[in-house]
Amino acid sequence: MSLDAVLARIDADLPAATDRLMTLLRIQSISTDPAFKSECDKAADWLVADLNSIGIQAEKRATPGHPMVVGHVGDPDSDVPHLLFYGHYDVQPVDPLNLWTAPPFEPKIEDTDNGPVIRGRGASDDKGQLMTFVEACRAWKEIHGNLPCRITFFFEGEEESGSPSLVPFMEANAKELKADLALICDTSMVSRGVPSIASQLRGMLKDEFTITGPRIDLHSGHYGGPGLNPLREMARIIASFYDDETGKVTVEGFYEGVHEVPAEQLRQWQSCGFDEADYLHSVGYSMPHGETGYSTLEQQWARPTLEVNGMWGGYTGAGSKTVIPSQAHCKITCRLVGDMDPDALRGRIRKHVEDHLSTDAKVSWDQDLEGSPAPVMNIERPEFEAARGALSDEWEREAVFTGMGGSIPIAGFFKSVLDMDAMLIGFANDDDAIHSPNEKYDVKSFHKGIRSWARVLEALTKAG
Amino acid sequence: MSLDAVLARIDADLPAATDRLMTLLRIQSISTDPAFKSECDKAADWLVADLNSIGIQAEKRATPGHPMVVGHVGDPDSDVPHLLFYGHYDVQPVDPLNLWTAPPFEPKIEDTDNGPVIRGRGASDDKGQLMTFVEACRAWKEIHGNLPCRITFFFEGEEESGSPSLVPFMEANAKELKADLALICDTSMVSRGVPSIASQLRGMLKDEFTITGPRIDLHSGHYGGPGLNPLREMARIIASFYDDETGKVTVEGFYEGVHEVPAEQLRQWQSCGFDEADYLHSVGYSMPHGETGYSTLEQQWARPTLEVNGMWGGYTGAGSKTVIPSQAHCKITCRLVGDMDPDALRGRIRKHVEDHLSTDAKVSWDQDLEGSPAPVMNIERPEFEAARGALSDEWEREAVFTGMGGSIPIAGFFKSVLDMDAMLIGFANDDDAIHSPNEKYDVKSFHKGIRSWARVLEALTKAG
Repeated sequence: MSLDAVLARIDADLPAATDRLMTLLRIQSISTDPAFKSECDKAADWLVADLNSIGIQAEKRATPGHPMVVGHVGDPDSDVPHLLFYGHYDVQPVDPLNLWTAPPFEPKIEDTDNGPVIRGRGASDDKGQLMTFVEACRAWKEIHGNLPCRITFFFEGEEESGSPSLVPFMEANAKELKADLALICDTSMVSRGVPSIASQLRGMLKDEFTITGPRIDLHSGHYGGPGLNPLREMARIIASFYDDETGKVTVEGFYEGVHEVPAEQLRQWQSCGFDEADYLHSVGYSMPHGETGYSTLEQQWARPTLEVNGMWGGYTGAGSKTVIPSQAHCKITCRLVGDMDPDALRGRIRKHVEDHLSTDAKVSWDQDLEGSPAPVMNIERPEFEAARGALSDEWEREAVFTGMGGSIPIAGFFKSVLDMDAMLIGFANDDDAIHSPNEKYDVKSFHKGIRSWARVLEALTKAG
Repeated sequence: MSLDAVLARIDADLPAATDRLMTLLRIQSISTDPAFKSECDKAADWLVADLNSIGIQAEKRATPGHPMVVGHVGDPDSDVPHLLFYGHYDVQPVDPLNLWTAPPFEPKIEDTDNGPVIRGRGASDDKGQLMTFVEACRAWKEIHGNLPCRITFFFEGEEESGSPSLVPFMEANAKELKADLALICDTSMVSRGVPSIASQLRGMLKDEFTITGPRIDLHSGHYGGPGLNPLREMARIIASFYDDETGKVTVEGFYEGVHEVPAEQLRQWQSCGFDEADYLHSVGYSMPHGETGYSTLEQQWARPTLEVNGMWGGYTGAGSKTVIPSQAHCKITCRLVGDMDPDALRGRIRKHVEDHLSTDAKVSWDQDLEGSPAPVMNIERPEFEAARGALSDEWEREAVFTGMGGSIPIAGFFKSVLDMDAMLIGFANDDDAIHSPNEKYDVKSFHKGIRSWARVLEALTKAG
C-alpha cells in the first residue's frame, strides 16, 4: 500500500479536517461540571457519527458518568497487528473566562510568531490530538479502502475529572478492549519540532502524617521553653529528609530500584533541543535544585523525589496567636522511577519519621493513600523503534524517547487491567496553554500529527 | 492602727463578702460579645455603687468600648503612700456551655477535695480576685474609719477582649491615675498555698514571614526534582533556628541581654512547691524540652524562646494534590527576658532567615507586628520585700518572687504610659479553670486573699 498517496490526501484534506476539528471544539464538553453533561453526551455522539462516516463500527457506551466511545475496524481473524487508540473528548473548565481573548468555544485560526494556531478550549487537550489519529485513519481508508491493521478506538469523557468510570469499564470490557499495543495521543513534544515518544514516566506514592506534641493547644507564655512544639518537630523532620549538599533524599533505601539512564538515552536527551534555561527561568529559577550531578531533564524524568505538597499547623489567620499547637500536619508525594516499590518505600519513609521523632512527639499516618510504581514502557518491543523511525521521517529530525516527570494513569491501567503495553506519542507544545485560558494547538502539530500517525500505522504494521 | 481588728472583721464578714461576690458574678459581663454590652455596663455600675457604699468616691467613665471604673480615697495632700489598684470586671465567654456542670452565671459554693470553692464564670478571673482588694478596704474602713494610705481604684471591662480602650484612657487621664505603685490582682500562686509575687515577666516579639520559591504553583510531576520547594525551604530554615543538642536558639546574638537568675531567686523557685512532673504530665510531656541545664521553671520564666505559632503552605484540604507551591508561610513569637531588645532581635532573626535562604528563594516580612521588652519589676523597691513579709505572715509560709512565662501587658503600660512600677499579687490556683468551663475560686483564696491585702496595705504604708 502506498503511504505517499495517503500523505498527499492528508495534505489536500487539511482544510476539511480542520473544519471537523472546529465542529468538535464547539461542543462544550466540560466533564467536571454537571451543567455540561448533555454537551459531553453530544461530543460522544459526534465522535460516533464521525467514526461511522469513515466506515468504522462505533457506538456510545453508557457509564455511571459520561459515556465512552468504542469503535472497531479490521478483521478479528486476520493476523495483522491489533492496536488500540486512546484519547479523551472532555475538556477542562474555562475559568477565568475574562482572560480569554476570544470565547473559548468559538474556535478560530490565528496567526502567531510560530505560525498559525487553532485557538479554543480542547484544541490541544485532547480533541486536536485525538483527531490527528482519526484523520490519519480517514485518509488511509479513503485511499486504500481499509486500514493496514486492526484498530480499536477508545475515547473517554472523564479524563479531566479523575476518570472514575475508566477502570470499571476496562474491567467489564477487557476482552473487547485488549489489543497488541495501546497508542495514546495526550502528550507533548520535548521541544518545538522534535518528535517525541514518552518512554519513561514516573510512578507515585502519596502519604500524609500528623505529629502530635502536647495533648492540647498550649499557651506559649505558660509552656514556651519546656514545651515541645510539633511545628518545630515537623520542620526538623522534613529537613531531615534531605542532604542539602547533594540534594539527595536521606531516607534509608530510598534509591533502591533506581537505575542510571543508559548512555544512548542520555545522548538523545542531550540533543533533544530542551531549553533548560528557559524551562527554569519561566517559573523563577536560575538553576536546577535537585540532585547534584544530574541534568534538569534527568532530575525530572529519571530521578525520584520526595516532595512536600502541603504543611500546616497552629494559627494561620490574620494577626498573631501565642499558641503552641497540639498538632502539625504534612502531605507528601514521591515520584518513583525504575523498579522502586511504593509499598516498601512507604515503610521506609514512615520508619525514617518514627526514628527521628523526639521524646514526647507522636506520629500518626493517614491510611489508604495509593501508590503506583513507575509505568514500564516496553521500548524493547520492535514497534517502538519502528514508530521512532516513522516520526523521524515525518519531522526530518531524529525522534526521541523522552521521559516525563508526571504520571499518566491510563498507561498504567492498560498494563495492570489489560496486560497491554502502551506507547505515548503526542504533538502538543509546552506553550499550548492546556488547562489555561487561550488554549491552542499549532496547525503544524495538527497537520504533521495526522501525517505522523499515517506513517506510524504503516511502520507498526510492518513491525508487528 | 490595729491590723488584728481588721483581720477579725474580715473573718466575721466572710459570708457577706461572699454574697457580694455572688451578686457581681451573676452579672454576665462578657466583654467580647456585643450582646452582653449592657451587662458590662451593669457590672461597672455595681462596682461604682459598691465602692460608694464604703465611702469611696467612684464613677463610671465612658470609653469607645466598655466603661472604666475609677475611684479615689484618701487625702491628696497627705504624705501617705499613694497606691493604684487594678482589676477587670469583664469575663471570658462561657462556650462550650454543655461542659458546665451548672449554669455559669448562677454561682454557688461547692465542696471539693481541696475545700469549698465558689463556682461560676469570673469567680477567679478576675471578679473574685478584684473583690479581695475591695473587701480588704471595706474591713479597714469599717474598723478604722479610713484607709492607711491613699488609693486609686482602676477597673476595666475589656481585659478579655484585648483592652482596646486601655492605653488611650490611661494617656488621657495620666495625671489622675498616676500613683506611687500599681497593685494588680490577676495572677496565680505558684502552687497551692504558696503566696507569690510575680516579679519576672517575659516580653514579646511577633513576626511573620513568607518564603517564595517558584513564581507560580507548579505541577510536582513537571518540576519535581529541579524545582525548589518553599515548604522544604521553610522547614530547613525553621530547623536551623535551633541547636537540637542544647535546645538553644542559634540566631546570632539571640541571648544578648539575657541574665542568669540570681542565686537567691533560684533558691526561692526551687523551694516554691512547684510540681514539675505534674505540670508537664498534665499536657502530655515526660520531660522539659527547652535549653539543657535549666529547670522547667527557669526555661519558662527566665529563658527566652523563639516559638513557631503557625506554619502553612501548599495544599491542606482532603486527599492529595501534586503541587510545588509558590509560597510557604510562618508566624513566630519570641518571649523576651532581661534586657533583650525586641527591635534588635527582630533584625537578627530576619538576618538569620535571609542568610540561610537558598538561591532562588525569597523572603518577605509582615510589617508592624509589635514587640515589647520584658517588663521590669522593680523588686529593689522596699515595698516588694514588705509585701513579701506580709504575705508570708498570712500564709504561714515564705512568700516567693516568682516568674511568669507570659506577658501581662497592663504591667508594661503602667510603666510606659504612667512611669509607675507595678506589683502583681494574686491568689488564683492553676486548677481554677479560668477561660474554661466550671471556673472556680477557692474560698480559701478569697478569704486569705482579703486578709493578705489587709496586711499588705499596712506593710506598704509602713514601707512607703
